[in-house]
Formats: sequence, C-alpha cells, structure tokens
Amino acid sequence: MSSMDCATFPMHPKMDEQLARAFAANEEEEEKHIQKVQNAFLYYGPYACQRLKRSMDYLNSLSGEDQIMLARYRGHLECVRTCIDRNQAVIREILRERVLYPAEEATGDPSADRWEFDEPPPNVRHGDMDQAQSTLKLIARDWSTEGALEREQSYKPIIDSIVEYYKPSDFELKEIKILVPGAGLGRLTYELACLGYSCEGNEFSYFMLIASNFVLNLCDYENKYVLYPWVHQYVNNLRREDQVAAVRFPDVCPLKNPPKGHFEIAAGDFLEVYKTPNAYNCVATCFFIDCANNVIDFIRTIYKILVPGGIWVNLGPLLYHYSDVSGQNSIEPTFEDLCIIMESVGFVIETSRTGIRTKYAQNPSSMKQSEYQSLFWVCRKPDTFEEQRGKRKASREPHDLIVREDSEEEEEEEQQPEQNEMGQKQQLKTLAMANGDTEMKAQPT
Amino acid sequence: MSSMDCATFPMHPKMDEQLARAFAANEEEEEKHIQKVQNAFLYYGPYACQRLKRSMDYLNSLSGEDQIMLARYRGHLECVRTCIDRNQAVIREILRERVLYPAEEATGDPSADRWEFDEPPPNVRHGDMDQAQSTLKLIARDWSTEGALEREQSYKPIIDSIVEYYKPSDFELKEIKILVPGAGLGRLTYELACLGYSCEGNEFSYFMLIASNFVLNLCDYENKYVLYPWVHQYVNNLRREDQVAAVRFPDVCPLKNPPKGHFEIAAGDFLEVYKTPNAYNCVATCFFIDCANNVIDFIRTIYKILVPGGIWVNLGPLLYHYSDVSGQNSIEPTFEDLCIIMESVGFVIETSRTGIRTKYAQNPSSMKQSEYQSLFWVCRKPDTFEEQRGKRKASREPHDLIVREDSEEEEEEEQQPEQNEMGQKQQLKTLAMANGDTEMKAQPT
Repeated sequence: MSSMDCATFPMHPKMDEQLARAFAANEEEEEKHIQKVQNAFLYYGPYACQRLKRSMDYLNSLSGEDQIMLARYRGHLECVRTCIDRNQAVIREILRERVLYPAEEATGDPSADRWEFDEPPPNVRHGDMDQAQSTLKLIARDWSTEGALEREQSYKPIIDSIVEYYKPSDFELKEIKILVPGAGLGRLTYELACLGYSCEGNEFSYFMLIASNFVLNLCDYENKYVLYPWVHQYVNNLRREDQVAAVRFPDVCPLKNPPKGHFEIAAGDFLEVYKTPNAYNCVATCFFIDCANNVIDFIRTIYKILVPGGIWVNLGPLLYHYSDVSGQNSIEPTFEDLCIIMESVGFVIETSRTGIRTKYAQNPSSMKQSEYQSLFWVCRKPDTFEEQRGKRKASREPHDLIVREDSEEEEEEEQQPEQNEMGQKQQLKTLAMANGDTEMKAQPT
Repeated sequence: MSSMDCATFPMHPKMDEQLARAFAANEEEEEKHIQKVQNAFLYYGPYACQRLKRSMDYLNSLSGEDQIMLARYRGHLECVRTCIDRNQAVIREILRERVLYPAEEATGDPSADRWEFDEPPPNVRHGDMDQAQSTLKLIARDWSTEGALEREQSYKPIIDSIVEYYKPSDFELKEIKILVPGAGLGRLTYELACLGYSCEGNEFSYFMLIASNFVLNLCDYENKYVLYPWVHQYVNNLRREDQVAAVRFPDVCPLKNPPKGHFEIAAGDFLEVYKTPNAYNCVATCFFIDCANNVIDFIRTIYKILVPGGIWVNLGPLLYHYSDVSGQNSIEPTFEDLCIIMESVGFVIETSRTGIRTKYAQNPSSMKQSEYQSLFWVCRKPDTFEEQRGKRKASREPHDLIVREDSEEEEEEEQQPEQNEMGQKQQLKTLAMANGDTEMKAQPT
C-alpha cells in the first residue's frame, strides 16, 4: 500500500463530497488504491459464491446414496448462499454514500447489478478479498453485542489505565489528547471519547476506514443491520447454524450517542502522519505495534509525539505482520527485546503484564479456538519533575477541573528536557484547539 | 500425492534393503515422490537459513542506534542459526538409514555436504518445506516429555474407550486387531500395542513415515536426540529462549520397550489400502477424518473393514484439509451432518461428546495459543445379536481371557447380517494370523 503523507482528514464528522473530491484529485495513486478496496468490497459476493459453488459442484458429482445423506448439508449450502447475498447487500449500504471515494463511473443506484463484478476486478487479489471478509468480522468485534467479551478483554485494560492516569477528578478531560494508532473500526477511540477525552484515531486500511465511516456516520439507529461474519468458515462447525449465525450492528449508535469528547479518525500511515513532537497526552495502541517493519520506528514515533509526562498504553501480542510476507522487511524482537528498546528510547515502564487472555475476531462457536496471551504495558515519557509530580499526586485528590496541572507547573519552573520548550507550546496550542471543538460537527448542537 | 494401491509394508520391524528396493523398482512414481520428500528434508537447513538471513540483512541495514538496541536480538538470531544447524544434523540422522528409499546417487557418508542443497531442489515447494518443519513439531508431540499433555488430551480418551470395550479381563488382547489410520509419528499405535492389542498404523505422508521409522526402529536409547521444534516461529515470543527451546526425543525408546502386541506401520492411502471387509475389531482415528475429500468415503470404509460388533473410536476437530486447497474437491459436513451420515452408513453411535480440549503441536510458550474443541465418539458396527450381547455383558465381569466371545456366539447362532458370513471367516483367519505373530520381528525374542 502506498503511504499518504500527511493527508489526514476527519471521518467523523464526515468529510463533505467536495473536500473528498479535492483529496482524491490531489492523490491519484491514493484514488486508485481506494478504488481497489471498493472493487474488492463489490466483488465480495461473487468471490464468496465461487468458493461455495466448488462445494456444491462436488456435492452434485457424488453418488445418489451420498447425496441423500447430505440432503440437509445441501440445504445448508443454500442457506450459506443467502447469507452471502445479505452480506453483499450490507456492503452495498456501506458503499452507498461513497463520499470518501467518488469515482465518476460509479455513481448512481447502489443496488444496481453493475455494482458487482462477475469477473475478478482489476488489481484485486486474494489478500484483498480476505480483507473484505475480515472487515465483516471486525465489524462484529467492534460494534455488536457478540463482540462485547472481546472488547472487554482488549479495550478495558487500556481504558482503565488511562482513566487511572488521567483521572476525571484531576483533569479537564477534553484537554487530554489521546491518539489511537491502528484504530480499525473505531470502537476503542469512540469509548475513550465518550469518557470525555479528546480522541483521534489513525487508520491506514481503507477497508477499515470505509467500514468505520459507515458505522460512525451513517448508521442511524441501533442494530439496524445484520451480518453473517462466520459464513466463510466452512470447517470446524458443530452445527449448520453456526456457520450462518447472524450478528446485528451497531450495538451502540454513535450518531445517537455522540461522545462527550472530541472524536475524529485520521487516514494515513502512522509514521508518515505523526511527526509533530509533544502533541499527545496519551497514545493507546491495541493490536497495533506488530504492524511495523521495524517496531523501533513505531516506538520512537510514539515517544516523540507524546508530551513529557504523557503515557503510552499498549495491549496485544507480537504477531509481526510482515514476518513472512515476501518482499517485506521485518525484524521480530521478543518482549524481552522490546523492554530494552522502550527504555533505550527513553520510556519509563510503569506497568507491564504478560498473559492477558484476548481473543481477536473469533467465531465463538468454532471447534478451533485461538487466543493471544497478550502483553500489556503503560510507559511514561519522563519529565524532569518526577519527584514534585509524585508529591502533587499525593495532594491531588480533591481537586476539580484542574487544567493540565503538570504542564502549568512545568512552565512555571521553566525546566524542560531537550526539545521540550517547542513541544510544550505545541501541546498548549493543540489543547486550545481542542477546547474550541469538543462537539462532533455532524451532530446538531 | 499418488496413491500406493495395496503396497503396504511393515516399517516395524523395518523393511530390509532388498525388499525396499523391490518396492521402489515397482513403483517409479512412488520413488520420485519419496525422493522429493527426502530432498525437502535435505533442503530444510538452507531454506530455514534463507528466512533467517532476511531478518539479519534487514537488521544490518538499520541505523547504528537501532542496532545497538537490537544487540541481544542479533545474538539471538545467531542462536537461531545454531538451532537450525542442529535440527539439520538430526534430519541427517533420520535420513541416514535410508532403507525406505534407496537412491543410487545418494548413498555414502550422510554427513557430507552434498547431502544438502544450496539451490531449491527440483519439485520441492513451500508446502513441502512447511511439512518438513511440521515433522519436527510432530516428533515433539508424539515422542517428547513436552508432548505428554497433548498426548493425554488426544490419545487417552481413545485408549480408555478401547480398553473399556475390549477389556483385558474379557479378551485375549493380541487377537483384537486395531487399525490406526493417519498414524503419523506412531505414538497412539505404539501405546495401544503396548497394552497388548494387535496394532496396525496406516500413514500416507512420507514425511511422517520416514520420521516414525527413525523413532521406532533406529533410536537406540531414550532422549538420544535434541530438536528445536519452535525455532521457525519468529512471532509471539515473550523471551528469546522460547524460540530456541530444546526438546529431547524419544521420551520412550520403542527399541528398548517393544510392545506386547503386534505392531506395524503400513504406508499408503487409506481408501486404496483398506478394502477387505470385516478385518478389524477396532478402528481408531485421531485428527484424521477431516483429511478426506469426501468424509463419507472414510466413514464407509471404516464401517466395511470393521467386524460386526467392532468399534470405531474417533477424536478430533473438523478442519477439513482440502477445504480451501485449489484443485481439490471438498465437502465440509458439520458434526450434525456426520451424525446423519454415520447412522445412515449403519453405525450405532454409542458415545458422542463435543468440546474435548485438545492442543495440536502447540508451542507452549507462544503468545498465541490455539486449541480444538474436539469431537469424540465411539460408534459400533452392529451385529444382529445386540440383545443377547447386552445380557452377556451383564454376566461377563469375572471371565478371564475370553477369546472373541461375540464371534463365537454369532457363529453358534448362524444369524448374520449381509456380508457377514464372509466377514466372519475373514476375521477368524486374521485372528489366527495375528496369533502366530504377536512379537515384533525386529526384536530378539
């Protein structure tokens, strides 16, 4: 995939068509890429039906005796076909308001047949089709009742740590800027924004961006849509109904439940987009850091963009995504190595746990169950006032609405580590901006 | 892979070189296939080192600052290299007595460099290399102390059921013929033979056959060899040492602990090799039935080769192996469908459980843990004397060494279901043969 330089844009509130078109015009390569993702979504149904047809063809070739024994299985395959059609219908809805990727040849009635492909669309590969199918599972993970357990496992430790560090009783939460790189379908970012923090999600994949835009901006009531996220899993099914289990989404409607805090999703490559030092009070990464060619680049960037005293909260395994991808560079440091790296970069490891049981987009009925024994840590970018800070903490309890207490004291004392003066200003400027825009623009105020 | 018709041969006692050569001469295609497997084994080291080199090259391209942080990681990669070399040395041992696949050009000193390839050998694909690596993991599963838990999970329910059905107090165990299709590295077959049953393992993969031949026939004392089965797992490692953990094998030396019962391993395609009706008292399948294009073929064959009153014991998930293999036919009936199929074929389902937690060749230290919620069942091929049989059971308890009580009574009553007369004779003939050969031929008696 191509990088997107600093081309970030808010997806919530949603980008208007003109802005999107300008963005697309400026970025021809990007437009091509978005078109490819869109084509993969549109080819979802035919691709899934091809797979189904192979089973059906083989079934039809078997002896009459075998076919009698498989009569219910045949009925089941017909049901699988229906589920694929329904998934494709939801995907059509997801693509209906294509404000993000206006292509001249593809405007008009979204339910028309020409939205779909009988032949594989150009440049779309099996990996893209896998991603289209995975997107459905990730919608279930982030935005369905069925995903609640996975979210509890993955997001709650992160949220709890942030709330513990940036206590609502001690901070004006809307002035606490949180960045969530690898935001995916956006639920973690949304939950943090609901608590009142000023949140920015960052996501690179247009499969994720298009789907999250739909959930965040275009779903107008709870549980409006039905998906069949496990319909592509033909193996390890106990019961026929397990493969065709329905999942409703969204379990919470963000349009009807706008977060208290500022909330936006920025598209782009984390390393390309985030270059401003001392910009965030917190970076929260969940199943993200193993998406780097060189994880040190991620860690160094996170360190750089945090304000002194800011924290990085991480949860996830070390499933280095490029580990066995041909043509991709990859190193795969162990947790031991990461500890060395984090401290070398300058972080203070405040908390570190291993073995956090976390499932990721698991079919709960499958006979194969996988889970990660995830890592969890809270790292702090140190400032030079840790002793005073410790004392402040002790006397902080009864305060109300303290506006960035640490920053003020740091400014008073005028002692800042290298790069910090600029960073501090940057931070204050950012906070001021956030103050003026804590409501979601798309919402009636 | 090609089928092998009825070309079975005992691997334990091991085939002599002349016999092997005759076998190979008759089966040119087979010989080619064996050569390919051997080549994959010999290419193991270079292939694994290529993967390692990509990480090392990327590491060397990083900044000096990054490389300092990764100093221990670099040392670790060098350790990985050593483990790969040691694995290759064990593979050389495994291939040393190549009685199964005598190739003219490849006799001589097995430690010579020419045993290995710098270039990919002809016809060897990534899938073959994966299988060579998997073989190391399966040796650990079947023949190391570290594999004890997995064996307890997978083999104990099967063994317990067989012992319960063919009680040592009620049967002359050496007359109870058990077939284990998909015998793999042979441990389940070995354990059943150790109890005194007359056991035949069947295996299709020469990766498995070559490795099991080594463990069963050529390892002369316990824990003689060391393998590093997890060395190819670069991701999800907590500690560097997790990737390079050593596993000794064999935990039990079959040569020094020969089974009480007859024991042999037969090579070949289950559907091609096993066509004789009413030949086995028990078929035990473990992680096997999902290896079929059409699982009905397996179930029907199992039914056919069982004697009336014989049992099929199965444990495993439904990870249909051909489900997404291009160019392969596959249907994927659920457990519900299998129950219909088993009963339609004629089986009586005696016991059936779901959710048996079973790991399969899992790295115990990995941050990713998968397990199957396996199915378990005992099915019986019915005879027409079930009522009497039920009564007999009630009065059977105190008997000693009853020789195939059911068969005798069936003969007395001369009532047999279709095909049964021939089958009964076949069975008795088989039993007589087994009586004359209950010791392992390779062992001093």
